[in-house]
Amino acid sequence: MRQQKPLRSEMGWSTTDKITVRGRDLCNDLLGKIDLGGMAWLELTGRMPTPQEAAVFNALLVTLVEHGMTPHAIATRMVQVCAPEAMQAAVAAGICAVGSVFAGGSEMVARTLQGAIKDTPADADIAAIAEKIVEDHVSRKVPISGIGHPLHKPIDPRTPVLFAIAEQNGFRGRYCALQEAISLAAEKRLNRVLPVNAPGAIGALMCELGFPWQICRGIAVIGRCVGLVGHVAEEMRSPMALEIYDRVNDEVLEYGLKGG
Amino acid sequence: MRQQKPLRSEMGWSTTDKITVRGRDLCNDLLGKIDLGGMAWLELTGRMPTPQEAAVFNALLVTLVEHGMTPHAIATRMVQVCAPEAMQAAVAAGICAVGSVFAGGSEMVARTLQGAIKDTPADADIAAIAEKIVEDHVSRKVPISGIGHPLHKPIDPRTPVLFAIAEQNGFRGRYCALQEAISLAAEKRLNRVLPVNAPGAIGALMCELGFPWQICRGIAVIGRCVGLVGHVAEEMRSPMALEIYDRVNDEVLEYGLKGG
Amino acid sequence: MRQQKPLRSEMGWSTTDKITVRGRDLCNDLLGKIDLGGMAWLELTGRMPTPQEAAVFNALLVTLVEHGMTPHAIATRMVQVCAPEAMQAAVAAGICAVGSVFAGGSEMVARTLQGAIKDTPADADIAAIAEKIVEDHVSRKVPISGIGHPLHKPIDPRTPVLFAIAEQNGFRGRYCALQEAISLAAEKRLNRVLPVNAPGAIGALMCELGFPWQICRGIAVIGRCVGLVGHVAEEMRSPMALEIYDRVNDEVLEYGLKGG
Amino acid sequence: MRQQKPLRSEMGWSTTDKITVRGRDLCNDLLGKIDLGGMAWLELTGRMPTPQEAAVFNALLVTLVEHGMTPHAIATRMVQVCAPEAMQAAVAAGICAVGSVFAGGSEMVARTLQGAIKDTPADADIAAIAEKIVEDHVSRKVPISGIGHPLHKPIDPRTPVLFAIAEQNGFRGRYCALQEAISLAAEKRLNRVLPVNAPGAIGALMCELGFPWQICRGIAVIGRCVGLVGHVAEEMRSPMALEIYDRVNDEVLEYGLKGG
Repeated sequence: MRQQKPLRSEMGWSTTDKITVRGRDLCNDLLGKIDLGGMAWLELTGRMPTPQEAAVFNALLVTLVEHGMTPHAIATRMVQVCAPEAMQAAVAAGICAVGSVFAGGSEMVARTLQGAIKDTPADADIAAIAEKIVEDHVSRKVPISGIGHPLHKPIDPRTPVLFAIAEQNGFRGRYCALQEAISLAAEKRLNRVLPVNAPGAIGALMCELGFPWQICRGIAVIGRCVGLVGHVAEEMRSPMALEIYDRVNDEVLEYGLKGG
Repeated sequence: MRQQKPLRSEMGWSTTDKITVRGRDLCNDLLGKIDLGGMAWLELTGRMPTPQEAAVFNALLVTLVEHGMTPHAIATRMVQVCAPEAMQAAVAAGICAVGSVFAGGSEMVARTLQGAIKDTPADADIAAIAEKIVEDHVSRKVPISGIGHPLHKPIDPRTPVLFAIAEQNGFRGRYCALQEAISLAAEKRLNRVLPVNAPGAIGALMCELGFPWQICRGIAVIGRCVGLVGHVAEEMRSPMALEIYDRVNDEVLEYGLKGG
Repeated sequence: MRQQKPLRSEMGWSTTDKITVRGRDLCNDLLGKIDLGGMAWLELTGRMPTPQEAAVFNALLVTLVEHGMTPHAIATRMVQVCAPEAMQAAVAAGICAVGSVFAGGSEMVARTLQGAIKDTPADADIAAIAEKIVEDHVSRKVPISGIGHPLHKPIDPRTPVLFAIAEQNGFRGRYCALQEAISLAAEKRLNRVLPVNAPGAIGALMCELGFPWQICRGIAVIGRCVGLVGHVAEEMRSPMALEIYDRVNDEVLEYGLKGG
Repeated sequence: MRQQKPLRSEMGWSTTDKITVRGRDLCNDLLGKIDLGGMAWLELTGRMPTPQEAAVFNALLVTLVEHGMTPHAIATRMVQVCAPEAMQAAVAAGICAVGSVFAGGSEMVARTLQGAIKDTPADADIAAIAEKIVEDHVSRKVPISGIGHPLHKPIDPRTPVLFAIAEQNGFRGRYCALQEAISLAAEKRLNRVLPVNAPGAIGALMCELGFPWQICRGIAVIGRCVGLVGHVAEEMRSPMALEIYDRVNDEVLEYGLKGG
């Protein structure tokens, strides 16, 4: 006979007159006293954010909300038009696309940074570590995450703003420094302009805030969920999914009728 | 030949040096100046919230984040344990469960309230309208949304707090009054204790904030998404999905072996 | 203390040397002896199909597999390109779109047909019942499901083939007759050409096969799942998702830069 | 200005009187002439299966349909109970769980086998290749996919049946031989009983049938989709999701009230 293990969760529970969330009384301690970004912090860490943590964390989340007509938004709108009775399924479809290609950048950045300096002394030689990371990626022919951008040139406009917000709040630390050093080392090694991009800044700041790299994709999921509900609302007001479908269909049909 | 329609969206777009979200410059106008709840408001309405709107809207969102080990959380954890490479799919699975049973309450409340008084004069007789709504539901044998609660008795502790936050911010208006009048009329008609519950308060306050009822489920999707990322993080730290699976499986097997 | 209810399932269980599926030994009774369509029948009904049932049921499923670049396929491809590590999430996104608009036709047809004659005597006047159904829909200004088609004119080519397969296998019964009578009555009442379409034929045949209308959407889910895995495979070989995304994005950007 | 690329698909298209699927006329060439498993083959390969291919392929698919109350089934039932208006979302949630843990076995098996002998001559020394694969996994401390089973001991009852079906149909070739040689080499090297398990057999047979390893997860998605629709139907007839939820919730609450 298998020995049962107890089921334990610290997330929350409810009794007749009280709802407990991460050890706090929802009605008395949280409602009216914390915003949605702070609530996300509480869910992930089990404690309330300081004002500085809340400022940086909200900036990361806000960065991730809306990028226009991305594949996520298109997927969500396609489902919304086919299943208007279930908006949640439309948003879920778009969230399925928050994968390695889209949210993998900041995840990989945080993984690399934490792997390199999480347990090193504070006076470690950041420039040397960065050079080693770049050399390692170049020798394995693996792209270096968090630097360069196909559209935003010569710099990603989000990076200086995110780093400035971090600095104002005391979170521009050694992870940011290492990501910037990686950018410099890569520019020198590859002779290209490769500034820290938004995923690079977000990955570094997630490290500064103390999150393990494994949860980085989660903040992209949260931010993007907000944006996708926005796209559902626009698709209700001003639809475009069927027009996209019609165009794709027309073109594929025309090709097919010519003999494929 | 089909006439193509133009593709139009106001959600956002990017150029080399600028990211535009709902007509605003992400880097200069939003980052560091708006929190995630405010960003959700901007996505849905196209304008920045007033501090009062932000306070009420964040309170609604925060209410919806975490309810412990709900079916949503169980679904998310089941997927996480089977597909740890794709946390986004785990959250998406839980979001699929934000359906008519869970989020339908506030949606139905808002639909009923907007149907009843959206276009009526400010001096309409709220008590009479409430009695008519109750009578209509009773005669059709349809449950009245937004009143009573199976666990929270005699009152739902969230309702007075949400209504107080609304009052402080100037949003305790006629939709709240009508939902309270429906509660009173139903208590009288059915001779039971049926106070306004949290879905009732949320539905009424979404009306006060000016949202169409069709988007109500969206704020449950956003709030719950935050909570489900929290459950993914806990499942990573302190797993329980496989134990739940093992217990279910053991019991079904034992029954099956006895001859079904 | 809440009284626990037992957990019971007849779907299947495994022991050291045997896997039981719907009461049958997977290895000895099913593998090599049943095809996937038959297995779907077994899952839904708990018994093996007769050859006649298998023929009709497979024809319904095959009809539902592939319709080209539908919104479902577009959604799946959008997710695949963003999360290639999780093909299952891409298919899941497309399945989310098997909703009321796409699969609702046959569901509504089966609901209407079962509501009308499930419990009526075999000699009921089909033509009169059809006229009543049409009149009821017209008076409520609700579209009649299962007749007419925006593209396939004057007839839906699938309908005569499906009805012929049903006839050969002894399943062209009174539900088919009623759906055809509804088509005739509607054509007369509305003075338009409104032949039974594929959802009409599928809904009627699901009734003939004895399925409750509530599960009709399930066979669309199964059929479409097969098709969506096909689209994932084509997107791997010959991608088009990013081109669709680029076109949408370019057009929305151009519009945005002109001032929205 | 970006140069547009053409949108091309061979999956299918429709005209007024004809539906084309993978180059075939759905109504005249497929309906009544192919079953669902054959249709899946056509979708993935673009051609009709031989009877031998259809036999082996259907056996693989049938193996993957039903495994009782797995995490996938639990996830699907949790969503079904919360969103009964959208059965497709419930199935999608369960499909999200067909990930690396569940379907990764046969994917990894096929990847390893194809990496090892896809381009080697027919007279390659299978035993030596197997020993090298085992040694490589042992030295990297990576588990060897497709051998051993936690429950099915000493053998997985599906393997001999699947291999026998393959043999009868001319598909028990060198990929099967290599997987069996890996089993033998691993048993010798690790001194444990490690027979070829079902994922091992399925992975090897997908190679024999000519599929690239990247699509292996797709047949698990198809098979499991059929099973999950079965679970939705059972949950409708004989619900258990809420009882599972109640038990989890009760236990977590009891723990929480003791002080967490």
